[in-house]
Amino acid sequence: MPRWEPNAVGRLHDAALDLFTEQGYDQTTVAQIAARAGLTERTFFNHFSSKREVLFGRTSEIQKQVLTREIHASPANLRPIDMVVRALRAAADEVLEEFREPAAPRRVIIEATPELQEREEAKRAALTAAMADALRERGLDADTALLAAGAGLLIQQAAEQRWIQPEERRPLRDLIDEALSSLRSVTGTDAV
Amino acid sequence: MPRWEPNAVGRLHDAALDLFTEQGYDQTTVAQIAARAGLTERTFFNHFSSKREVLFGRTSEIQKQVLTREIHASPANLRPIDMVVRALRAAADEVLEEFREPAAPRRVIIEATPELQEREEAKRAALTAAMADALRERGLDADTALLAAGAGLLIQQAAEQRWIQPEERRPLRDLIDEALSSLRSVTGTDAV
Repeated sequence: MPRWEPNAVGRLHDAALDLFTEQGYDQTTVAQIAARAGLTERTFFNHFSSKREVLFGRTSEIQKQVLTREIHASPANLRPIDMVVRALRAAADEVLEEFREPAAPRRVIIEATPELQEREEAKRAALTAAMADALRERGLDADTALLAAGAGLLIQQAAEQRWIQPEERRPLRDLIDEALSSLRSVTGTDAV
Repeated sequence: MPRWEPNAVGRLHDAALDLFTEQGYDQTTVAQIAARAGLTERTFFNHFSSKREVLFGRTSEIQKQVLTREIHASPANLRPIDMVVRALRAAADEVLEEFREPAAPRRVIIEATPELQEREEAKRAALTAAMADALRERGLDADTALLAAGAGLLIQQAAEQRWIQPEERRPLRDLIDEALSSLRSVTGTDAV
């Protein structure tokens, strides 16, 4: 069992983000991250299997649980996309909103680092699959479930992109609603 | 320069797909793939940097070029989503339709192999980014470009999912049109 260290995951995440920003991802070692966090390398490896994992932590696991729970708990009369958006709003409030401050520098590092981009894409795919599974468990056919979950992910990405802008002050949940409207307007329903 | 071998890329791809299907991805070596294709390991490495790349080849590079070219060539009065769908149809006809037969077993292998899944996700992200770039070059704002490109990818995925079903006979381009209709119906435009 890992020895208990107060908020070790959060301290390692913040230390890693600072070091990646200051000196680059490739130039940063696990030893440096642990030292900056005031923890040992051993504690690092109690929580993360590699440097690649440190910016991801358990957030996406918890996010997945909230999305699944909320889709299961949706009123039966909601349309699939509205079940998804309701779940995304809950995950925004319960999981993501408190990480608003580090979200922008975190995004910069991920986009500059191919192996973190791959990790991020895998995380997104896992969230989409979890939403699609939950929608199928609500009785949707597989094709509709995948489209609704994929549209949900797109809404989430568009909302996060706005959320990390320095001038943006609205909570993520509101930006999710806005992104749904934008997606509807971009896809349209009338022929050209 | 690689020595010329008739259709080495295609032969290596097919040999790899057969071996992965027969004995699993992890159990297959580059030496076995080369031998099955009647080529040398050296020829393999002239074309692919690792086993992980052999199912991807140059298709996604060419697909990206077609998508970019077609978005640039779209009539100015088209809506963003229609520029994207027009480009996806062109890529379906010019690049993907001829790979219909191996598409289903290829999908099975990729979905069973985490490192290929990551590779596939990265490819999808690159295609989305290429479409978004091309849309921005057509004057769209960044948010709209990302949403339209993301919606395009979702349409492509839904269409491919149907395309690989054994009973499905329609060309991919028609399934792209159908997927656009499904996406419109899933996202809706009217409030609940």
